[in-house]
Amino acid sequence: MGDPNNDAQGMTIVCWSGEIDKVWPQFILATTGAAYGMDVTMFCTFWGLFTLKRPEVKVTGDNWMTKMLGMMNNQRLSHLNFAGAGPAMMRSIAAKHKVAPPEELLETARELGVKLAPCQMTMDLMGLSREDLIDGIEEPLGAAAAMSAMQRSQINLFI
Amino acid sequence: MGDPNNDAQGMTIVCWSGEIDKVWPQFILATTGAAYGMDVTMFCTFWGLFTLKRPEVKVTGDNWMTKMLGMMNNQRLSHLNFAGAGPAMMRSIAAKHKVAPPEELLETARELGVKLAPCQMTMDLMGLSREDLIDGIEEPLGAAAAMSAMQRSQINLFI
Amino acid sequence: MGDPNNDAQGMTIVCWSGEIDKVWPQFILATTGAAYGMDVTMFCTFWGLFTLKRPEVKVTGDNWMTKMLGMMNNQRLSHLNFAGAGPAMMRSIAAKHKVAPPEELLETARELGVKLAPCQMTMDLMGLSREDLIDGIEEPLGAAAAMSAMQRSQINLFI
Repeated sequence: MGDPNNDAQGMTIVCWSGEIDKVWPQFILATTGAAYGMDVTMFCTFWGLFTLKRPEVKVTGDNWMTKMLGMMNNQRLSHLNFAGAGPAMMRSIAAKHKVAPPEELLETARELGVKLAPCQMTMDLMGLSREDLIDGIEEPLGAAAAMSAMQRSQINLFI
Repeated sequence: MGDPNNDAQGMTIVCWSGEIDKVWPQFILATTGAAYGMDVTMFCTFWGLFTLKRPEVKVTGDNWMTKMLGMMNNQRLSHLNFAGAGPAMMRSIAAKHKVAPPEELLETARELGVKLAPCQMTMDLMGLSREDLIDGIEEPLGAAAAMSAMQRSQINLFI
Repeated sequence: MGDPNNDAQGMTIVCWSGEIDKVWPQFILATTGAAYGMDVTMFCTFWGLFTLKRPEVKVTGDNWMTKMLGMMNNQRLSHLNFAGAGPAMMRSIAAKHKVAPPEELLETARELGVKLAPCQMTMDLMGLSREDLIDGIEEPLGAAAAMSAMQRSQINLFI
Protein backbone atom coordinates (compact mmCIF):
# COMPACT_ATOMS: atom_id res chain seq x y z
CA MET A 1 0.00 0.00 0.00
CA GLY A 2 1.56 3.29 -1.05
CA ASP A 3 1.71 6.25 1.25
CA PRO A 4 -1.07 8.75 0.91
CA ASN A 5 0.48 11.26 -1.39
CA ASN A 6 -0.37 14.91 -1.71
CA ASP A 7 1.66 15.27 -4.85
CA ALA A 8 -0.85 12.90 -6.38
CA GLN A 9 -1.51 13.88 -9.97
CA GLY A 10 -3.09 10.81 -11.47
CA MET A 11 -6.67 9.72 -11.95
CA THR A 12 -8.29 6.45 -10.89
CA ILE A 13 -11.73 5.54 -12.17
CA VAL A 14 -13.48 2.70 -10.37
CA CYS A 15 -15.37 1.36 -13.40
CA TRP A 16 -18.25 -0.45 -11.72
CA SER A 17 -20.90 -0.04 -14.44
CA GLY A 18 -21.23 -2.03 -17.63
CA GLU A 19 -24.13 -0.16 -19.18
CA ILE A 20 -23.10 1.63 -22.33
CA ASP A 21 -24.17 5.10 -21.25
CA LYS A 22 -21.73 4.82 -18.32
CA VAL A 23 -18.97 2.97 -20.17
CA TRP A 24 -18.83 5.95 -22.50
CA PRO A 25 -17.95 8.54 -19.81
CA GLN A 26 -15.53 6.06 -18.19
CA PHE A 27 -13.52 6.00 -21.41
CA ILE A 28 -14.00 9.64 -22.40
CA LEU A 29 -12.71 10.86 -19.03
CA ALA A 30 -9.87 8.31 -18.98
CA THR A 31 -8.63 9.11 -22.48
CA THR A 32 -8.96 12.85 -21.97
CA GLY A 33 -6.87 12.63 -18.80
CA ALA A 34 -4.26 10.46 -20.49
CA ALA A 35 -4.13 12.77 -23.51
CA TYR A 36 -3.16 15.57 -21.13
CA GLY A 37 -0.40 13.56 -19.52
CA MET A 38 -2.12 12.15 -16.47
CA ASP A 39 -1.36 8.68 -15.15
CA VAL A 40 -4.78 7.02 -15.47
CA THR A 41 -6.01 3.70 -14.05
CA MET A 42 -9.39 2.16 -14.86
CA PHE A 43 -10.16 -0.41 -12.15
CA CYS A 44 -12.82 -2.59 -13.77
CA THR A 45 -15.02 -4.24 -11.15
CA PHE A 46 -18.49 -5.79 -10.92
CA TRP A 47 -20.42 -5.06 -14.12
CA GLY A 48 -17.48 -3.00 -15.36
CA LEU A 49 -15.47 -6.20 -15.79
CA PHE A 50 -17.68 -7.02 -18.79
CA THR A 51 -15.80 -4.32 -20.70
CA LEU A 52 -12.61 -6.41 -20.46
CA LYS A 53 -14.20 -9.79 -21.15
CA ARG A 54 -13.65 -11.44 -24.51
CA PRO A 55 -17.00 -11.27 -26.36
CA GLU A 56 -17.08 -15.01 -26.96
CA VAL A 57 -16.73 -15.88 -23.26
CA LYS A 58 -20.08 -16.49 -21.61
CA VAL A 59 -20.78 -16.14 -17.90
CA THR A 60 -23.13 -18.94 -17.08
CA GLY A 61 -24.72 -21.11 -14.51
CA ASP A 62 -23.85 -21.67 -10.93
CA ASN A 63 -22.10 -18.54 -9.83
CA TRP A 64 -22.56 -15.74 -7.39
CA MET A 65 -23.11 -12.85 -9.80
CA THR A 66 -25.78 -14.75 -11.69
CA LYS A 67 -27.63 -15.57 -8.50
CA MET A 68 -27.31 -12.04 -7.20
CA LEU A 69 -28.66 -10.78 -10.49
CA GLY A 70 -31.65 -13.10 -10.23
CA MET A 71 -32.29 -11.91 -6.70
CA MET A 72 -32.33 -8.33 -7.90
CA ASN A 73 -34.83 -9.07 -10.66
CA ASN A 74 -32.66 -6.76 -12.65
CA GLN A 75 -32.30 -6.19 -16.33
CA ARG A 76 -28.73 -5.03 -16.23
CA LEU A 77 -27.31 -7.92 -18.21
CA SER A 78 -29.54 -7.04 -21.14
CA HIS A 79 -27.79 -3.71 -21.30
CA LEU A 80 -24.35 -5.25 -21.47
CA ASN A 81 -24.50 -5.83 -25.18
CA PHE A 82 -21.36 -3.80 -25.62
CA ALA A 83 -19.86 -6.46 -27.87
CA GLY A 84 -23.08 -7.77 -29.35
CA ALA A 85 -25.37 -6.21 -31.94
CA GLY A 86 -24.56 -2.73 -30.71
CA PRO A 87 -21.15 -1.85 -32.15
CA ALA A 88 -22.10 -1.77 -35.83
CA MET A 89 -24.97 0.61 -35.22
CA MET A 90 -22.90 2.58 -32.76
CA ARG A 91 -20.09 3.00 -35.24
CA SER A 92 -22.44 4.44 -37.83
CA ILE A 93 -24.06 6.84 -35.36
CA ALA A 94 -20.75 7.85 -33.85
CA ALA A 95 -19.25 8.42 -37.29
CA LYS A 96 -22.16 10.66 -38.21
CA HIS A 97 -21.66 12.68 -35.05
CA LYS A 98 -17.87 12.46 -35.03
CA VAL A 99 -17.82 10.82 -31.59
CA ALA A 100 -15.70 7.75 -31.02
CA PRO A 101 -17.63 4.58 -30.05
CA PRO A 102 -16.57 2.66 -26.90
CA GLU A 103 -14.73 0.00 -28.90
CA GLU A 104 -12.56 2.66 -30.47
CA LEU A 105 -12.15 4.45 -27.13
CA LEU A 106 -10.88 1.18 -25.62
CA GLU A 107 -8.25 0.99 -28.34
CA THR A 108 -7.38 4.66 -27.86
CA ALA A 109 -7.11 4.14 -24.10
CA ARG A 110 -4.56 1.36 -24.60
CA GLU A 111 -2.58 3.47 -27.05
CA LEU A 112 -2.49 6.40 -24.60
CA GLY A 113 -1.20 4.16 -21.83
CA VAL A 114 -4.36 4.06 -19.70
CA LYS A 115 -3.98 1.14 -17.30
CA LEU A 116 -6.97 -1.19 -17.69
CA ALA A 117 -6.98 -3.29 -14.52
CA PRO A 118 -9.48 -6.11 -13.92
CA CYS A 119 -10.71 -6.72 -10.36
CA GLN A 120 -9.47 -10.06 -9.07
CA MET A 121 -12.40 -10.56 -6.69
CA THR A 122 -14.95 -10.04 -9.47
CA MET A 123 -13.06 -12.49 -11.69
CA ASP A 124 -13.22 -15.09 -8.90
CA LEU A 125 -16.94 -14.52 -8.36
CA MET A 126 -17.71 -14.76 -12.06
CA GLY A 127 -15.44 -17.73 -12.56
CA LEU A 128 -13.27 -15.92 -15.10
CA SER A 129 -9.57 -16.47 -15.57
CA ARG A 130 -7.00 -14.20 -17.19
CA GLU A 131 -7.43 -15.97 -20.54
CA ASP A 132 -11.12 -15.00 -20.60
CA LEU A 133 -10.12 -11.33 -20.76
CA ILE A 134 -8.87 -9.30 -23.69
CA ASP A 135 -5.21 -8.63 -24.40
CA GLY A 136 -3.26 -5.50 -23.60
CA ILE A 137 -4.49 -5.02 -20.07
CA GLU A 138 -2.90 -5.05 -16.60
CA GLU A 139 -2.64 -7.99 -14.27
CA PRO A 140 -5.71 -8.41 -12.02
CA LEU A 141 -5.75 -6.17 -8.95
CA GLY A 142 -7.21 -6.70 -5.50
CA ALA A 143 -9.04 -4.06 -3.51
CA ALA A 144 -5.84 -3.11 -1.66
CA ALA A 145 -4.01 -2.34 -4.90
CA ALA A 146 -6.99 -0.34 -6.15
CA MET A 147 -6.93 1.64 -2.91
CA SER A 148 -3.24 2.27 -3.40
CA ALA A 149 -3.89 3.61 -6.92
CA MET A 150 -6.54 5.93 -5.48
CA GLN A 151 -4.10 7.19 -2.88
CA ARG A 152 -1.73 8.15 -5.68
CA SER A 153 -4.50 9.94 -7.59
CA GLN A 154 -5.67 13.52 -7.40
CA ILE A 155 -8.93 12.64 -9.16
CA ASN A 156 -10.91 9.58 -8.04
CA LEU A 157 -14.28 8.73 -9.53
CA PHE A 158 -16.73 5.86 -9.07
CA ILE A 159 -18.67 5.34 -12.31
CA MET B 1 -5.39 22.52 -19.39
CA GLY B 2 -4.38 23.79 -15.97
CA ASP B 3 -1.55 22.24 -14.05
CA PRO B 4 -2.52 19.61 -11.54
CA ASN B 5 -2.78 21.64 -8.40
CA ASN B 6 -2.32 20.44 -4.88
CA ASP B 7 -3.67 23.65 -3.45
CA ALA B 8 -6.94 22.65 -5.06
CA GLN B 9 -9.82 23.68 -2.83
CA GLY B 10 -12.81 23.60 -5.14
CA MET B 11 -15.39 20.97 -5.95
CA THR B 12 -16.39 19.62 -9.36
CA ILE B 13 -19.47 17.46 -9.71
CA VAL B 14 -19.82 15.55 -12.98
CA CYS B 15 -23.62 15.65 -13.14
CA TRP B 16 -24.33 12.66 -15.38
CA SER B 17 -27.75 11.66 -14.00
CA GLY B 18 -31.08 13.28 -14.75
CA GLU B 19 -33.24 11.24 -12.40
CA ILE B 20 -34.68 13.35 -9.66
CA ASP B 21 -33.30 11.33 -6.76
CA LYS B 22 -29.79 12.04 -8.08
CA VAL B 23 -30.40 15.63 -9.22
CA TRP B 24 -31.27 16.36 -5.61
CA PRO B 25 -27.88 15.37 -4.13
CA GLN B 26 -26.09 17.06 -7.07
CA PHE B 27 -27.63 20.37 -6.02
CA ILE B 28 -27.56 19.83 -2.25
CA LEU B 29 -23.82 19.08 -2.32
CA ALA B 30 -23.09 21.92 -4.77
CA THR B 31 -25.01 24.56 -2.82
CA THR B 32 -23.62 23.38 0.51
CA GLY B 33 -20.09 23.65 -0.84
CA ALA B 34 -20.74 27.09 -2.32
CA ALA B 35 -22.37 28.29 0.90
CA TYR B 36 -19.10 27.47 2.67
CA GLY B 37 -17.02 29.40 0.18
CA MET B 38 -15.89 26.66 -2.18
CA ASP B 39 -15.51 27.27 -5.90
CA VAL B 40 -18.05 24.77 -7.29
CA THR B 41 -18.58 23.58 -10.88
CA MET B 42 -21.44 21.35 -11.98
CA PHE B 43 -20.46 19.80 -15.31
CA CYS B 44 -23.81 18.68 -16.75
CA THR B 45 -23.35 15.80 -19.18
CA PHE B 46 -25.43 12.97 -20.65
CA TRP B 47 -28.78 12.76 -18.83
CA GLY B 48 -27.61 15.54 -16.51
CA LEU B 49 -27.90 18.01 -19.38
CA PHE B 50 -31.69 17.74 -19.08
CA THR B 51 -31.42 19.81 -15.90
CA LEU B 52 -30.22 22.79 -17.98
CA LYS B 53 -32.63 22.35 -20.89
CA ARG B 54 -35.54 24.75 -21.26
CA PRO B 55 -38.70 22.75 -20.39
CA GLU B 56 -40.38 23.63 -23.69
CA VAL B 57 -37.50 22.27 -25.81
CA LYS B 58 -38.10 18.68 -26.94
CA VAL B 59 -35.37 16.22 -27.87
CA THR B 60 -36.78 14.30 -30.77
CA GLY B 61 -36.22 12.02 -33.68
CA ASP B 62 -33.08 11.10 -35.45
CA ASN B 63 -30.35 11.53 -32.94
CA TRP B 64 -27.77 9.44 -31.18
CA MET B 65 -29.08 9.66 -27.62
CA THR B 66 -32.55 8.63 -28.70
CA LYS B 67 -31.22 5.63 -30.56
CA MET B 68 -28.91 4.66 -27.72
CA LEU B 69 -31.83 4.89 -25.35
CA GLY B 70 -33.90 2.60 -27.57
CA MET B 71 -31.04 0.13 -27.70
CA MET B 72 -30.90 0.06 -23.92
CA ASN B 73 -34.63 -0.60 -23.61
CA ASN B 74 -34.41 1.84 -20.79
CA GLN B 75 -36.99 3.85 -18.97
CA ARG B 76 -34.72 6.65 -17.94
CA LEU B 77 -36.43 9.35 -19.98
CA SER B 78 -39.66 8.71 -18.10
CA HIS B 79 -37.86 9.72 -14.93
CA LEU B 80 -36.73 13.02 -16.32
CA ASN B 81 -39.94 14.82 -15.55
CA PHE B 82 -38.04 17.38 -13.54
CA ALA B 83 -39.90 20.20 -15.27
CA GLY B 84 -43.16 18.40 -15.94
CA ALA B 85 -45.92 17.41 -13.53
CA GLY B 86 -43.45 16.92 -10.72
CA PRO B 87 -42.58 20.41 -9.46
CA ALA B 88 -45.99 21.38 -8.09
CA MET B 89 -46.24 18.21 -6.04
CA MET B 90 -42.60 18.46 -5.09
CA ARG B 91 -43.01 22.00 -3.87
CA SER B 92 -45.83 20.99 -1.58
CA ILE B 93 -43.94 18.01 -0.17
CA ALA B 94 -40.73 19.95 0.18
CA ALA B 95 -42.53 22.82 1.91
CA LYS B 96 -44.09 20.38 4.35
CA HIS B 97 -40.68 18.91 5.15
CA LYS B 98 -38.76 22.21 4.88
CA VAL B 99 -36.48 20.84 2.13
CA ALA B 100 -35.90 22.93 -0.98
CA PRO B 101 -37.09 21.33 -4.26
CA PRO B 102 -34.62 21.01 -7.17
CA GLU B 103 -36.09 24.02 -8.97
CA GLU B 104 -35.38 26.18 -5.98
CA LEU B 105 -31.96 24.61 -5.48
CA LEU B 106 -31.11 25.50 -9.10
CA GLU B 107 -31.98 29.11 -8.35
CA THR B 108 -30.01 29.02 -5.10
CA ALA B 109 -27.04 27.49 -6.93
CA ARG B 110 -26.97 30.39 -9.38
CA GLU B 111 -27.26 32.93 -6.57
CA LEU B 112 -24.36 31.31 -4.70
CA GLY B 113 -22.16 31.43 -7.78
CA VAL B 114 -22.12 27.70 -8.57
CA LYS B 115 -20.90 27.34 -12.16
CA LEU B 116 -23.48 25.36 -14.16
CA ALA B 117 -21.60 24.17 -17.23
CA PRO B 118 -23.27 22.21 -20.05
CA CYS B 119 -21.26 19.52 -21.83
CA GLN B 120 -20.61 20.52 -25.44
CA MET B 121 -20.38 16.93 -26.69
CA THR B 122 -23.76 16.02 -25.20
CA MET B 123 -25.31 19.14 -26.75
CA ASP B 124 -23.96 18.07 -30.14
CA LEU B 125 -25.28 14.52 -29.75
CA MET B 126 -28.72 15.72 -28.68
CA GLY B 127 -28.85 18.42 -31.33
CA LEU B 128 -29.20 21.23 -28.76
CA SER B 129 -27.82 24.71 -29.16
CA ARG B 130 -27.08 27.32 -26.50
CA GLU B 131 -30.52 28.89 -26.99
CA ASP B 132 -32.18 25.60 -26.01
CA LEU B 133 -30.67 25.89 -22.53
CA ILE B 134 -31.75 28.07 -19.61
CA ASP B 135 -30.20 31.44 -18.78
CA GLY B 136 -27.60 32.17 -16.18
CA ILE B 137 -25.25 29.30 -16.93
CA GLU B 138 -21.68 28.96 -18.20
CA GLU B 139 -20.57 28.55 -21.77
CA PRO B 140 -20.51 24.88 -22.91
CA LEU B 141 -17.39 22.96 -21.89
CA GLY B 142 -15.55 20.13 -23.59
CA ALA B 143 -14.09 17.12 -21.78
CA ALA B 144 -10.68 18.78 -21.57
CA ALA B 145 -12.09 21.81 -19.77
CA ALA B 146 -14.01 19.54 -17.42
CA MET B 147 -10.78 17.67 -16.69
CA SER B 148 -9.07 20.97 -15.98
CA ALA B 149 -11.80 21.90 -13.49
CA MET B 150 -11.32 18.54 -11.78
CA GLN B 151 -7.59 19.13 -11.55
CA ARG B 152 -8.30 22.38 -9.70
CA SER B 153 -10.71 20.65 -7.30
CA GLN B 154 -10.07 18.93 -4.01
CA ILE B 155 -13.44 17.17 -4.17
CA ASN B 156 -14.52 15.44 -7.39
CA LEU B 157 -17.71 13.44 -7.61
CA PHE B 158 -19.51 11.60 -10.42
CA ILE B 159 -23.25 11.61 -9.74
CA MET C 1 -16.73 23.62 8.53
CA GLY C 2 -13.09 22.56 8.56
CA ASP C 3 -10.53 24.24 6.39
CA PRO C 4 -9.85 22.62 3.08
CA ASN C 5 -6.88 20.52 3.89
CA ASN C 6 -4.17 19.38 1.54
CA ASP C 7 -2.78 16.99 4.09
CA ALA C 8 -6.08 15.17 3.76
CA GLN C 9 -5.48 11.43 4.00
CA GLY C 10 -8.90 10.04 4.77
CA MET C 11 -11.68 8.68 2.62
CA THR C 12 -15.33 9.72 2.56
CA ILE C 13 -17.88 7.62 0.71
CA VAL C 14 -21.23 9.24 0.07
CA CYS C 15 -23.31 6.06 0.28
CA TRP C 16 -26.38 7.04 -1.72
CA SER C 17 -27.35 3.60 -3.09
CA GLY C 18 -29.17 0.86 -1.24
CA GLU C 19 -29.04 -1.81 -3.95
CA ILE C 20 -26.95 -4.74 -2.90
CA ASP C 21 -24.55 -4.64 -5.83
CA LYS C 22 -23.56 -1.09 -4.77
CA VAL C 23 -23.69 -1.67 -1.01
CA TRP C 24 -21.02 -4.30 -1.56
CA PRO C 25 -18.40 -1.95 -3.06
CA GLN C 26 -19.29 0.73 -0.49
CA PHE C 27 -18.24 -1.67 2.28
CA ILE C 28 -15.37 -3.34 0.46
CA LEU C 29 -13.72 0.00 -0.28
CA ALA C 30 -14.43 1.35 3.22
CA THR C 31 -13.05 -1.68 5.04
CA THR C 32 -10.03 -1.94 2.75
CA GLY C 33 -9.19 1.71 3.42
CA ALA C 34 -9.66 1.30 7.17
CA ALA C 35 -7.56 -1.87 7.21
CA TYR C 36 -4.71 0.18 5.77
CA GLY C 37 -5.02 2.87 8.41
CA MET C 38 -7.16 5.44 6.63
CA ASP C 39 -9.77 7.48 8.49
CA VAL C 40 -12.95 6.41 6.68
CA THR C 41 -16.45 7.92 6.83
CA MET C 42 -19.50 6.39 5.17
CA PHE C 43 -22.14 9.12 4.86
CA CYS C 44 -25.36 7.15 4.37
CA THR C 45 -27.95 9.21 2.52
CA PHE C 46 -31.07 8.63 0.42
CA TRP C 47 -31.40 4.89 -0.37
CA GLY C 48 -28.10 4.31 1.42
CA LEU C 49 -29.78 5.05 4.73
CA PHE C 50 -31.59 1.70 4.42
CA THR C 51 -28.27 0.03 5.27
CA LEU C 52 -28.40 1.57 8.75
CA LYS C 53 -32.11 1.00 9.39
CA ARG C 54 -33.17 -1.70 11.81
CA PRO C 55 -34.72 -4.49 9.70
CA GLU C 56 -37.95 -4.46 11.69
CA VAL C 57 -38.58 -0.74 11.10
CA LYS C 58 -40.87 -0.12 8.14
CA VAL C 59 -40.97 3.09 6.13
CA THR C 60 -44.62 3.56 5.35
CA GLY C 61 -47.34 5.83 4.21
CA ASP C 62 -47.43 9.55 3.91
CA ASN C 63 -43.88 10.60 3.43
CA TRP C 64 -41.77 12.30 0.84
CA MET C 65 -39.54 9.42 -0.20
CA THR C 66 -42.51 7.14 -0.73
CA LYS C 67 -44.23 9.71 -2.92
CA MET C 68 -41.07 10.47 -4.83
CA LEU C 69 -40.61 6.77 -5.41
CA GLY C 70 -44.14 6.45 -6.75
CA MET C 71 -43.51 9.39 -9.06
CA MET C 72 -40.45 7.68 -10.45
CA ASN C 73 -42.32 4.43 -11.13
CA ASN C 74 -39.22 2.83 -9.80
CA GLN C 75 -38.51 -0.61 -8.53
CA ARG C 76 -35.65 0.35 -6.29
CA LEU C 77 -37.35 -0.56 -3.03
CA SER C 78 -37.73 -4.13 -4.23
CA HIS C 79 -33.95 -4.32 -4.44
CA LEU C 80 -33.47 -3.19 -0.87
CA ASN C 81 -34.01 -6.61 0.59
CA PHE C 82 -30.65 -6.42 2.27
CA ALA C 83 -32.14 -7.64 5.54
CA GLY C 84 -34.90 -9.82 4.13
CA ALA C 85 -34.66 -13.19 2.44
CA GLY C 86 -31.28 -12.38 0.98
CA PRO C 87 -28.75 -12.80 3.78
CA ALA C 88 -29.10 -16.55 4.27
CA MET C 89 -28.56 -17.24 0.59
CA MET C 90 -25.84 -14.62 0.42
CA ARG C 91 -24.00 -16.14 3.34
CA SER C 92 -23.92 -19.51 1.65
CA ILE C 93 -22.76 -18.10 -1.67
CA ALA C 94 -20.21 -15.84 -0.04
CA ALA C 95 -18.89 -18.71 2.07
CA LYS C 96 -18.48 -20.83 -1.03
CA HIS C 97 -16.54 -18.06 -2.75
CA LYS C 98 -14.76 -16.83 0.40
CA VAL C 99 -16.19 -13.32 0.05
CA ALA C 100 -17.74 -11.63 3.07
CA PRO C 101 -21.46 -10.78 2.72
CA PRO C 102 -22.60 -7.17 3.40
CA GLU C 103 -23.89 -8.04 6.86
CA GLU C 104 -20.47 -9.28 7.85
CA LEU C 105 -18.77 -6.35 6.15
CA LEU C 106 -20.95 -3.98 8.22
CA GLU C 107 -19.70 -5.70 11.36
CA THR C 108 -16.11 -5.59 10.09
CA ALA C 109 -16.49 -1.89 9.24
CA ARG C 110 -17.53 -1.13 12.82
CA GLU C 111 -14.65 -3.18 14.22
CA LEU C 112 -12.16 -1.35 12.00
CA GLY C 113 -13.43 2.04 13.16
CA VAL C 114 -15.19 3.07 9.95
CA LYS C 115 -17.53 5.93 10.84
CA LEU C 116 -21.07 5.04 9.72
CA ALA C 117 -22.92 8.35 9.65
CA PRO C 118 -26.64 8.63 8.83
CA CYS C 119 -27.84 11.67 6.89
CA GLN C 120 -30.09 13.82 9.10
CA MET C 121 -32.06 15.24 6.16
CA THR C 122 -32.90 11.77 4.84
CA MET C 123 -33.98 10.68 8.32
CA ASP C 124 -36.34 13.67 8.49
CA LEU C 125 -37.79 12.95 5.06
CA MET C 126 -38.33 9.28 5.85
CA GLY C 127 -39.69 10.01 9.29
CA LEU C 128 -36.98 7.98 11.02
CA SER C 129 -35.52 8.77 14.43
CA ARG C 130 -32.22 7.67 15.93
CA GLU C 131 -33.90 4.69 17.63
CA ASP C 132 -34.98 3.34 14.22
CA LEU C 133 -31.33 2.89 13.27
CA ILE C 134 -28.87 0.18 14.30
CA ASP C 135 -26.40 0.54 17.15
CA GLY C 136 -22.73 1.34 16.88
CA ILE C 137 -23.01 4.22 14.41
CA GLU C 138 -22.28 7.95 14.49
CA GLU C 139 -24.69 10.72 15.34
CA PRO C 140 -26.68 11.94 12.30
CA LEU C 141 -24.83 14.43 10.10
CA GLY C 142 -26.11 17.32 8.01
CA ALA C 143 -24.83 18.19 4.53
CA ALA C 144 -22.38 20.72 5.97
CA ALA C 145 -20.74 18.12 8.21
CA ALA C 146 -20.56 15.70 5.27
CA MET C 147 -18.87 18.43 3.21
CA SER C 148 -16.41 18.99 6.03
CA ALA C 149 -15.55 15.27 6.07
CA MET C 150 -14.96 15.41 2.31
CA GLN C 151 -12.66 18.39 2.74
CA ARG C 152 -10.56 16.33 5.14
CA SER C 153 -10.43 13.39 2.70
CA GLN C 154 -8.00 12.62 -0.05
CA ILE C 155 -10.40 10.11 -1.60
CA ASN C 156 -14.07 11.06 -2.06
CA LEU C 157 -16.51 8.77 -3.82
CA PHE C 158 -20.25 8.92 -4.52
CA ILE C 159 -21.64 5.39 -4.69
